[in-house]
Amino acid sequence: MHIEIISIGNELLTGKTVNGNAAHIAKKLLEQGFSIKYVHSLPDDKTLLNEAITTICNRSDLVIITGGLGPTKDDLTREIVAKVFRRKLETCEDLKDDLHKRFPTLSSLDDQSMIVEGSKLFENKMGTAPGFFLTCTNKSVVALPGVPSQMQAILESEVIPFLEMKYPIKERQYFHEMHLYLLNENTLDPLLRSWEEKYPEIEVGICPSYGTLSLYFQIHADNKNLAMEKFNPLCKEIEKKFGTFVFASSDKSLSQSLQEEMIQKKESLVLAESCTGGSISSIITKNAGCSEFFLGSLVTYCDELKKDFLKVPKEVLDSDGAVSKACVIHMLEGLFTNTSASIAASVSGIAGPDGGTVEKPTGTIFTAIGKRGEKPLVLKLTTLGAKSRKVNIEYATNVVLAYLHRYLKHGVLERVDL
Amino acid sequence: MHIEIISIGNELLTGKTVNGNAAHIAKKLLEQGFSIKYVHSLPDDKTLLNEAITTICNRSDLVIITGGLGPTKDDLTREIVAKVFRRKLETCEDLKDDLHKRFPTLSSLDDQSMIVEGSKLFENKMGTAPGFFLTCTNKSVVALPGVPSQMQAILESEVIPFLEMKYPIKERQYFHEMHLYLLNENTLDPLLRSWEEKYPEIEVGICPSYGTLSLYFQIHADNKNLAMEKFNPLCKEIEKKFGTFVFASSDKSLSQSLQEEMIQKKESLVLAESCTGGSISSIITKNAGCSEFFLGSLVTYCDELKKDFLKVPKEVLDSDGAVSKACVIHMLEGLFTNTSASIAASVSGIAGPDGGTVEKPTGTIFTAIGKRGEKPLVLKLTTLGAKSRKVNIEYATNVVLAYLHRYLKHGVLERVDL
Repeated sequence: MHIEIISIGNELLTGKTVNGNAAHIAKKLLEQGFSIKYVHSLPDDKTLLNEAITTICNRSDLVIITGGLGPTKDDLTREIVAKVFRRKLETCEDLKDDLHKRFPTLSSLDDQSMIVEGSKLFENKMGTAPGFFLTCTNKSVVALPGVPSQMQAILESEVIPFLEMKYPIKERQYFHEMHLYLLNENTLDPLLRSWEEKYPEIEVGICPSYGTLSLYFQIHADNKNLAMEKFNPLCKEIEKKFGTFVFASSDKSLSQSLQEEMIQKKESLVLAESCTGGSISSIITKNAGCSEFFLGSLVTYCDELKKDFLKVPKEVLDSDGAVSKACVIHMLEGLFTNTSASIAASVSGIAGPDGGTVEKPTGTIFTAIGKRGEKPLVLKLTTLGAKSRKVNIEYATNVVLAYLHRYLKHGVLERVDL
Repeated sequence: MHIEIISIGNELLTGKTVNGNAAHIAKKLLEQGFSIKYVHSLPDDKTLLNEAITTICNRSDLVIITGGLGPTKDDLTREIVAKVFRRKLETCEDLKDDLHKRFPTLSSLDDQSMIVEGSKLFENKMGTAPGFFLTCTNKSVVALPGVPSQMQAILESEVIPFLEMKYPIKERQYFHEMHLYLLNENTLDPLLRSWEEKYPEIEVGICPSYGTLSLYFQIHADNKNLAMEKFNPLCKEIEKKFGTFVFASSDKSLSQSLQEEMIQKKESLVLAESCTGGSISSIITKNAGCSEFFLGSLVTYCDELKKDFLKVPKEVLDSDGAVSKACVIHMLEGLFTNTSASIAASVSGIAGPDGGTVEKPTGTIFTAIGKRGEKPLVLKLTTLGAKSRKVNIEYATNVVLAYLHRYLKHGVLERVDL
């Protein structure tokens, strides 16, 4: 089945917005066995939209469009889809009544009540624009609002169940993934090639990130059990070789995997962040339920806060500096002394782009990680070559989460040279 | 000039990765007057890539490709571009020597030294794969690595100067933007239509986000001064009506605008975050130079940390709860008592999806914002209808930054009803 995604909005072509909608839809559809062939971002331009949507609809079995359903005058999706499918726009009285009831103070609800003749509506509980499905002999389209929260809600509750009914899949593709940390792409690449020779049915992909790395497997099979049977020997081979570097075999994030381990082992975590500026804490607290193990983070960005809240001695800050082994050790001790947490981590470094020296260039990061009453692991990390502040912060964040998870899950707290 | 962007990688079509590269390139090119017609994401599939790249190259003046230049076997860009342009792949000895010198321990450098015959290389100081430019009578392509930090560095230092030389622009499009906060899309929409009538040469776009909202203006003009002359009356009209809601007239982020005000007014900031979990701090510290005003953030996610570090009385937590006016007031006082900051903000709320009650449903957020020695503004915010934890955190983060900026820049510290 040939499916393409079209995301509409000038903001996508001027770089004001990153196309997160397409990624979300692709992921959710893939879980149901629908794979996406291409993704396109198109501008709010009548002529270009008309041309592109016509071409793409004609070559696809299904096109999923996001954006351009709002009340503003640059929202053109309904109008263009009506034109491409040679349908009229008509007022939906039920929708109009409902919108006036739900949003008594809003204007432009009459425009929002126009629908494409013959379309099936998908209710939008969070906003004014419903999604819709339209089909004719050789083309079909699903249109959804561009506001991510609304799009996601409609996709989940209405569109996916509808597509599963409408397009029962015959030959399914199955996917499996493994997520690892503290490994280098170059360590895995030769193995990737050997796996493809040994398991020719399985397609293997690799996707490196800062401090973590994902392996994606893909196979054609009649059902899920058969697929898993085929994935299993390869997964076992990887587990055997890199077991203590694996953090998930699903699309669970590193912070979600850490949360699972923390709660299961009844540990509690507190952080002291300097160069990561709250980024580790922010990632941990994105997950619902984190309050079961996470006490908080002291983002002691300046020396004053390191001294006052974590009791880092002035002499250490004066002699070794805030970016030093001694400082992260004192920060960690400060956490254990002043909180009840069983596990703690501290991090201090030079995120850059400025502030580096010959001995401590930008990208030099110190971290201390440990359990109350036990000897902590103290590390100096370097993000070689990365002068980007963003990269340094992301790398430090992922590496601290990785060491914490490796300790919790696999009981290993030791330096890994990347 | 017809320019399209192609981003290559299965991870883009399975939703594992969001296409941030295309947004970055579009933004940087637009600053130089190059606008992007379409953006596409394509899979690592030889047949599909060949077909799509051929079609897109044939209809475009310039195609910018990212991804598929790495050392792994699913990296196909060089091979496909060579085929589409009917060129050979050949070893570049200089590149090979350089790579072996820079990465003595890496394998697969010989593959990485293969280049498309006749291509101009763009040096990659951070990785192994150089970018390249290739042209023939009717088509041109720029290929860049997919790793964002490498792509960005090459784009900035090599590609943009090269494109400016190669394609001097005749008829330019000019852009202007205004960013506002604490306003509703529905407040602005009727005005949008009236502006388009009053200023028919200017195209106006609107892009709402959580707590903030951006206006984009576009015009054809011979030079920048003429364009600005035409934008000016409209901008003044908006300034007059919504002046104290404007935080930037460039692509500066809210946190960057806040940093500018803080440093200029020689203020210092400290935060106490509960429901935002370090998100405000993390956004502030993404900006280089934030240490000039930002002391840090106490992410007191649990009650224990609120009591021990911010001296929130146990009785307040017991009677009013951690999500209350009384709690955020005490958190704010704790910040002023225990740090030297001149400005402080505290926030506590129910991010959800669970934890809400009838009186305090999910999305109830309290914040206190103020200057040392002055009466703080204490607010109860509600993100009506948003059951998404992500939305609630983002909304609270932006609203706190917005009130802080409005106070610093415009001297206004008062409740705004959205």
